[in-house]
Amino acid sequence: MPSQFDPPSGTRDFLAGELEARERAFATIRAVFARYGFEPLQTPAFERLDVLTGKYGDEGDKLIFKILRRGEHEASGEADLALRYDLTVPLARVAAAYGSRLPAPYKRYAMGPVWRADRPGKGRYREFVQCDLDTLGSASLLADAEIICAVSDVLTSLGIGDFAVLLNSRQALAGLLEAFGVPASLGPGVLITLDKLDKLTPDEVMAELETRGLRSDVAAKLVGAMTGPDAENEVRAALQLTGAGTAGLEEVDRVLALAAELISPGRITFTPRLVRGLSYYTGPIWEVVAPGMPGSIASGGRYDHLIEALGGPDVPATGGSLGIERILPLVAGAGDGPTARLDVAVTVMADEFAPPSFAFAAAARAAGLRASVYLGSSGKLSRQLKWAADQGARWCLIYGRAERAEHVVTVRDMASGEQTAVAVGQLTSHLARLAAN
Amino acid sequence: MPSQFDPPSGTRDFLAGELEARERAFATIRAVFARYGFEPLQTPAFERLDVLTGKYGDEGDKLIFKILRRGEHEASGEADLALRYDLTVPLARVAAAYGSRLPAPYKRYAMGPVWRADRPGKGRYREFVQCDLDTLGSASLLADAEIICAVSDVLTSLGIGDFAVLLNSRQALAGLLEAFGVPASLGPGVLITLDKLDKLTPDEVMAELETRGLRSDVAAKLVGAMTGPDAENEVRAALQLTGAGTAGLEEVDRVLALAAELISPGRITFTPRLVRGLSYYTGPIWEVVAPGMPGSIASGGRYDHLIEALGGPDVPATGGSLGIERILPLVAGAGDGPTARLDVAVTVMADEFAPPSFAFAAAARAAGLRASVYLGSSGKLSRQLKWAADQGARWCLIYGRAERAEHVVTVRDMASGEQTAVAVGQLTSHLARLAAN
Repeated sequence: MPSQFDPPSGTRDFLAGELEARERAFATIRAVFARYGFEPLQTPAFERLDVLTGKYGDEGDKLIFKILRRGEHEASGEADLALRYDLTVPLARVAAAYGSRLPAPYKRYAMGPVWRADRPGKGRYREFVQCDLDTLGSASLLADAEIICAVSDVLTSLGIGDFAVLLNSRQALAGLLEAFGVPASLGPGVLITLDKLDKLTPDEVMAELETRGLRSDVAAKLVGAMTGPDAENEVRAALQLTGAGTAGLEEVDRVLALAAELISPGRITFTPRLVRGLSYYTGPIWEVVAPGMPGSIASGGRYDHLIEALGGPDVPATGGSLGIERILPLVAGAGDGPTARLDVAVTVMADEFAPPSFAFAAAARAAGLRASVYLGSSGKLSRQLKWAADQGARWCLIYGRAERAEHVVTVRDMASGEQTAVAVGQLTSHLARLAAN
Repeated sequence: MPSQFDPPSGTRDFLAGELEARERAFATIRAVFARYGFEPLQTPAFERLDVLTGKYGDEGDKLIFKILRRGEHEASGEADLALRYDLTVPLARVAAAYGSRLPAPYKRYAMGPVWRADRPGKGRYREFVQCDLDTLGSASLLADAEIICAVSDVLTSLGIGDFAVLLNSRQALAGLLEAFGVPASLGPGVLITLDKLDKLTPDEVMAELETRGLRSDVAAKLVGAMTGPDAENEVRAALQLTGAGTAGLEEVDRVLALAAELISPGRITFTPRLVRGLSYYTGPIWEVVAPGMPGSIASGGRYDHLIEALGGPDVPATGGSLGIERILPLVAGAGDGPTARLDVAVTVMADEFAPPSFAFAAAARAAGLRASVYLGSSGKLSRQLKWAADQGARWCLIYGRAERAEHVVTVRDMASGEQTAVAVGQLTSHLARLAAN
């Protein structure tokens, strides 16, 4: 039942447990990207409307959140700004704005929310985090391979043990169509259907190819080569019949050879059926799949003219995107409940004991621990111990008349209930010792 | 000269150097807040429009960025969502939405961008980061003191050595007006003028009080008591004449006593002229000032009925806000230029050496270092060494025919130019040793 206090449709509030798990994953990702020499970029949440419109196709444009003009212009009902829809158009703007002040090549990652007015559904949000990794200004296949290695390294570092990188090349796809005599006019539709070979049977794919107008013998030969027992070698042999196919195979084999230095054998494979829907790719293309996850958890490719088409300079470019919102549920610990808020809970048995209790909390913090005093109104120890347990505290510090008389603090182990009297001056070192065990 | 590629007016692109400095400061702040047992909260960038409107006064409402309805409703020119204007209204909504599922008291911090359609100016942005720390559900002055201590601890941890906490109480202000016989109807205006005692001379303040309708003898006595050589004692004596004043003084002295356990003496002082403009404060109020900075770098106070007024439950509450965008320029290193992007740069002397070079970069990463291969098209060592220097790399790894024949990698110290041949299998441990020195 949605309530008036829920966040807007398709958005989420992140309370501590989930937020902390997300932030830990983000920190891991940032650390891996930095180790590969990628630097961070952060752009504003909104861009001028004209920077965004026309960049995502008609369907995309409808999903842009537009911001109303302000002041006297508000009544016009017009928009002049819009929330960013992805991280690529802002990258193109930054490449145009900063030009030679950026390092060459410009290896950057960006991780932050984007907004799309999509129909919200399970796992589909209107505010969600994107994570992009791109190299602008290098035509080298080393740049493509480096990005695939970095993405693979991120997934391993996040503890996602089981995944596979599917690799193909736009040139190889062009060569494939040419080698099997697919008419150029049918090419795009044929590729869309071939991409379904992971979900449909070969017969179903052949039938769909025929409805697209492909001759049945051509469809049978094409699908037969791609799905037979020796599919890879059959496809390789066919590709070598054309210039585009030969060039595409060289791209694939080069990236495979480079990635083999960092990615376990068998984890990255030439996948001739892989198409990637977006028309802007110009070279190697890839996807990462994980068992149990429909679709891909990361994907990317080379897109040498896109930055220019998006308003930036004409630079070769290659990049990848992590499907963060799909990956996070796979990360161990991400779904855990609230974690402990405190290591050390400090009682306040009466007003007069509040100043020393403040000092004991500070002593615990000096030992590197999270600590806080009791902020409630009860003077009962049982009530304060319940609060300490609710915070997940490992130790509770108790200080009353008896402790004051002896110049000690009672350190209670919350798990065992065992209590130890510790001299006030020894508190920080005592807690540091306990924490180190 | 603004260009079409600039970010929208009042917003900023953050490139690596500045962004990394900001992120380091944010990480420090989060760590300190966590040590005090505050937990993070993150809410969406936008809220339903009705959640925001009417909460910031007429002037505030005009500064809200409103989001146009979508699809068939876009033509209406109406808005249904709006970018958040602060982090307090979302907190009130969260308190209402999650109620008893939140810990009690709910100690949370939030740090993230907010958006205001203000006229951009030096240090005034339309997208800027706010950082709030609040405790909901505790009427105890310990909660107020804890927040002041946490804020002070943050500033110290950020390396801001010189700051002062100014402390007052709304009840003390009420008692002050009563003790000097200021008519209730003039109270709010008189307080606004008294707050200028840090900028205007006593005579100027007296003159302004008279223009507000205060009798000149009352104005003279009031200003005289607050600015004389023994001002604090005079004010304390006056406050003790009224019930509100006595209660306010007790609040102030209690917070001073608690804070004294954590904050150096003299760094927090009772400041009777401190008013804080916002009418919602109900108890202790405070500001942090730093030499050379006009205005305050942090501020806060108790606001026991605001959460209810903002649509949340009726809970006692106290909080503070760090003026992040004013504090960051004070943080050492925040203004530094681009930092080094790589520790280890790896040459690629020819295509055939690319796979081993990939492996050497991986070996350097395994030693915890940031490493990348050369992605350009030049086969010249001099060109690749220039690239390595541009990246700020400390070491460059060179591998060509000579090295391959000897099964070694040449490790060049970029500062000294000294070169060492290292056995391929020893590379990770060799680099780890170098990095540890």
